[in-house]
Amino acid sequence: MTGLHQYTTYLESQISGLKLVDEPRNLFVPLDYFLSLGGKRLRPILTVISGEIFNIPKEESIHAALCIELFHNFSLIHDDIMDEAPVRRGKPTVHTKWNSNVALLSGDAMFIEGYKQLANYSDHRLALLLRRFNETTIEVCQGQQLDMDFEKLETVSEPEYIEMIRLKTSVLLGCALEFGAILGNRDEGIRRNIYQFGVSLGIAFQIQDDILDLYGNPEIFGKQVGGDILSNKKTLLFLKAKELAKTHSDDRFTQLIQMHPDAQKVEYAQVLFEEIGAKKAAQDAMNDYYNQAMENLKHLEANGFRTEALHALAKFLITREL
Amino acid sequence: MTGLHQYTTYLESQISGLKLVDEPRNLFVPLDYFLSLGGKRLRPILTVISGEIFNIPKEESIHAALCIELFHNFSLIHDDIMDEAPVRRGKPTVHTKWNSNVALLSGDAMFIEGYKQLANYSDHRLALLLRRFNETTIEVCQGQQLDMDFEKLETVSEPEYIEMIRLKTSVLLGCALEFGAILGNRDEGIRRNIYQFGVSLGIAFQIQDDILDLYGNPEIFGKQVGGDILSNKKTLLFLKAKELAKTHSDDRFTQLIQMHPDAQKVEYAQVLFEEIGAKKAAQDAMNDYYNQAMENLKHLEANGFRTEALHALAKFLITREL
Repeated sequence: MTGLHQYTTYLESQISGLKLVDEPRNLFVPLDYFLSLGGKRLRPILTVISGEIFNIPKEESIHAALCIELFHNFSLIHDDIMDEAPVRRGKPTVHTKWNSNVALLSGDAMFIEGYKQLANYSDHRLALLLRRFNETTIEVCQGQQLDMDFEKLETVSEPEYIEMIRLKTSVLLGCALEFGAILGNRDEGIRRNIYQFGVSLGIAFQIQDDILDLYGNPEIFGKQVGGDILSNKKTLLFLKAKELAKTHSDDRFTQLIQMHPDAQKVEYAQVLFEEIGAKKAAQDAMNDYYNQAMENLKHLEANGFRTEALHALAKFLITREL
Repeated sequence: MTGLHQYTTYLESQISGLKLVDEPRNLFVPLDYFLSLGGKRLRPILTVISGEIFNIPKEESIHAALCIELFHNFSLIHDDIMDEAPVRRGKPTVHTKWNSNVALLSGDAMFIEGYKQLANYSDHRLALLLRRFNETTIEVCQGQQLDMDFEKLETVSEPEYIEMIRLKTSVLLGCALEFGAILGNRDEGIRRNIYQFGVSLGIAFQIQDDILDLYGNPEIFGKQVGGDILSNKKTLLFLKAKELAKTHSDDRFTQLIQMHPDAQKVEYAQVLFEEIGAKKAAQDAMNDYYNQAMENLKHLEANGFRTEALHALAKFLITREL
C-alpha cells in the first residue's frame, strides 16, 4: 500500500521510544523484548489513519494508537501461555524464553501500560475512549475463551465460529478505528460506521487467514501450510467442508479427519476442499464481509469524509498473497 | 470497629449485585466464585469512608470502591497462580478448582471489570482517577515481581523489603483512600495526605502480619503459625533477627535457618527472635509507620476534615490479635 511505510516507520519509532515501567528488570526486560519482535503494527496504524480522517494529527492520536498496540501485545503474551506456543514472530515466546510467571506478570504490566496511554487524554473524550476500550478488551477475552472452548467441542456452528473470530480478533480493529472518530469528536453514527468497517474487515481478514493456512504460498504467508488441518482445527473452511460433505453424502471428509497428520493429509484437504466447494464457499463468505466493510465506507463518504486510505488499507490486507 | 459492619454489609450487597461479563460460562463462573469467597472488603471500605470525609455519598463513591476491590481480586487470582497457592480463604484457588488458563483469563477479565467501574465517572475527575489507578496497579505488579525475585536472593536489605511491601500491598490502600479525595475534588496536598496515611498504615499492617505469623494466636490470626519461618521467608522480623545476630555474633540464627522445617523450628524462632530483640525491633518499626500514618491524619484534621472513622479503622487494623 502506497504510504503505509511512512506510518509503520512512525509507529516503530514511537514504540521503541516508549518509556515503560523500568524496574525490576524481570518485569520490564520481557516487555522490551516482546515489543521489539515487530509485527505489522496494523492496529495502531488504523488509529492514526482514522484520526487523520477526522482531522486529528498523528501527534495527538498516537497515545490511543499505542494503547491499542500495547493491549494487542499483552493479549499475545497471555494467549501464548494458554496456547503453549513456543514461537512468536520467529522468536521464543516470553513464557518460553523466561517462564510462565514472568509472562503472566509482565503481560499484566503491558496491559496497564496500555491504559496509561489513554490517561494522556484528560478531557471529555477520555470517558468515551475508556468505555469503548473496556468493552473491546472484555470481548477479546470472551473470544479467547470461546476459542479454547471450541477445541473441546465436537461441533461448532458457523455463526458460533464467526462470533468467536469477531470477538477474538475483529472488534479490536473496530476499536482502533473508532478511537480516531472519538478523538475527532464525531457523533455516534459516524463512530459506529467506522467501527463496523473495522469489524467486518477483520472478519474477512480472519477468514482469508483460514484459507491461506491451507492454500497460501508459505514463503509469502510466513507460516507452515496446513497447520490448521493437521490439528483438525474448526476454521470456517473446515466447517464449510464438513457441511458440504454432509449435504453431498461425501465420506471423504470423515476419512480426512481420521488421517495421520502429515503432508499427505494437507494435500488431501487441499484437493477435497476445492472439489467439494468449501474453498469457494469460504471465499464467498470472505467477500461478503469485505463488501459489508465497503458499504460502511460508502456511508462515511456520503458524510463527506475521505476514505482513500481505508480503501487502500483494506485492499492491502485482503490481497496479502499477491 | 463501631460501624464497620454497616460498610461491610453495604459492600457485600454491591459486590453480589455486580453485573459482570456473563458468558462464556468458563470465563464468568470463576469470577463469581472468587468474589463470593468473601474477605474483609477493607479496600473498598476505605474508598467509601474517604468519600464520606469529602462529602461524597457512598452511592457515588461505590464505583471507585468496586474498582479497587475488583483489582484486588484480580491480583489475588494471578498471584495464586504464580505462588502455586492451593487455598484462598479456606477454598480452592481458581487455578486449582479449574486450571491455570482459566485463572489467567478470568483474572484478566476481572481486571477489566475494575476499569469498567471507573468509566462510570465521565467528568474531569476520571483522568485523575485513571492516572492514580494506573500508577498504583503498575506498582503492585512491581511489588509482586520483587517479592518473587527476593525468594531467590541470598540477602535482602531492610529498605528493599519495606519498598517491596509498600509496592505490593500498601499503595493500593493509599489509592483506595485517595479515590475518595479525588471524587471530592480536593487539591493535591489533601490527596497526598490521605494517600500517605494509607501507605504508612499499610506498611504497619504488613509488618504486623509478619509478627503475627510467628507470634499470633492461630485461632484468631486464621493462618498456620510459623509458615514464614518454616520457609525461611525474608520478612522484616527475619531480617531484623539476622542483623541483630550478626551484631551480637550470635550463631543461633545460622542454626535456625538450617533447621528442618517443623514445630521445633517454629518454637526455636519464637524464643530466639524474642531474646535477640528482633520481635521488639519489628514492633518498633511497625509503630513508627503507624505513627507516620497518625501524623497524616493530624494534617487532615488541621484542614478541617473529620477523621474519626480513619482513626477507628487504623486502630481496628493494628489490634487484630486482641
